Amino acid sequence: MTDIAARLNELGITLPKPVAPIANYVPFVRSGNLLFISGQIAIGPNGIVTGTLGRDMNIDAGKSAARLCAINLLAQVSAALDNDLNKVRRVVKLGGFIQSEPSFTDIPNVMNGASDLMVELFGDIGRHARFAVGSSSLPMGTAVEVDGIFEVE
Amino acid sequence: MTDIAARLNELGITLPKPVAPIANYVPFVRSGNLLFISGQIAIGPNGIVTGTLGRDMNIDAGKSAARLCAINLLAQVSAALDNDLNKVRRVVKLGGFIQSEPSFTDIPNVMNGASDLMVELFGDIGRHARFAVGSSSLPMGTAVEVDGIFEVE
Amino acid sequence: MTDIAARLNELGITLPKPVAPIANYVPFVRSGNLLFISGQIAIGPNGIVTGTLGRDMNIDAGKSAARLCAINLLAQVSAALDNDLNKVRRVVKLGGFIQSEPSFTDIPNVMNGASDLMVELFGDIGRHARFAVGSSSLPMGTAVEVDGIFEVE
Repeated sequence: MTDIAARLNELGITLPKPVAPIANYVPFVRSGNLLFISGQIAIGPNGIVTGTLGRDMNIDAGKSAARLCAINLLAQVSAALDNDLNKVRRVVKLGGFIQSEPSFTDIPNVMNGASDLMVELFGDIGRHARFAVGSSSLPMGTAVEVDGIFEVE
Repeated sequence: MTDIAARLNELGITLPKPVAPIANYVPFVRSGNLLFISGQIAIGPNGIVTGTLGRDMNIDAGKSAARLCAINLLAQVSAALDNDLNKVRRVVKLGGFIQSEPSFTDIPNVMNGASDLMVELFGDIGRHARFAVGSSSLPMGTAVEVDGIFEVE
Repeated sequence: MTDIAARLNELGITLPKPVAPIANYVPFVRSGNLLFISGQIAIGPNGIVTGTLGRDMNIDAGKSAARLCAINLLAQVSAALDNDLNKVRRVVKLGGFIQSEPSFTDIPNVMNGASDLMVELFGDIGRHARFAVGSSSLPMGTAVEVDGIFEVE
């Protein structure tokens, strides 16, 4: 079995301090073996990554924003599991919203920024169901928002 | 333990007759201890609250619309639980769609109208995971649509 | 008990080969008795059904596109259940995204193309919770995207 913390290191990823909710809700709720993570925006050390695909953001930048959402999801999952990502049994589902112009249709490619990281990190148990859709506006102008469901020990 | 019906009274809320689906689906499905509630629109005694944030609706009106969606969610939860909201063990997740202009980004604040009510009513077990995103168009022009997952006895 | 394969035949539906994900994810994940199916687009024998409600697609065409998404969902469910749809215990929830102009509001009617099929096929256990919202842009310009949660044996 891979140690997920070691794998994070190999990938050069340091999980950030989990992003605090901007409102009267919580970043995660566990029910049975399912862990529901709130929608995470693309926020990193330099603040919120804003932009709209098909207008002022290209696909590579969009993928990076989606990857950042995935990192923020992982930070929440880790916090929910006493900092032990080895307790993840399966990435069940990601829901991806990509801030886009109506004319932009390469939405799955952008969302891959999040999906790829899950598989890089967890291997086969990182393969998940997902949806990916365009959105005309997202919180604080973030380019991407992703929520998730994880099965945990 | 707080009696939730008494707490509803304190909040001055009378649950409406649950809104009938406008289509070939049902307002709730239970699977195990999870209760999945269909997306509820902002409909009240005066009909559907229409409007678009950033165009013809301000944040306070948007929050009220989101609160109305939450009340309609609660009406469905209550109907699913033989009118006994004390059987709710946890508000697990809300999914919020806010009808918005592309330039409107204060989406979390609008969604708080729904989130705040859950915490006012249920206290700590009302704290939930959520996503909140903008949407270019919602059913019948409603300003807000919210669905939910509840853990129940 | 109805045999679902026989019922599919009566409805004149042949399930397609399940659509392969266009990315680094999988079409379904099972967790406990819940089967999570990835968002399915409106793709059929003639390719992707593109179009935007309120611009260049009418409601009947939109309903057909939604029905096609439902057929693609069923193909994935069938693949997940060793081709035995009789193992479905309940259609729990559908999530519908309808590519629409901001002025288009008859979103529930379009989504009925998916919901109706579930009830035609499964009867009462096909009645599901759902949300249906407009989206400014969907993958590859598909008119409709629908994901689903199914309770299975």
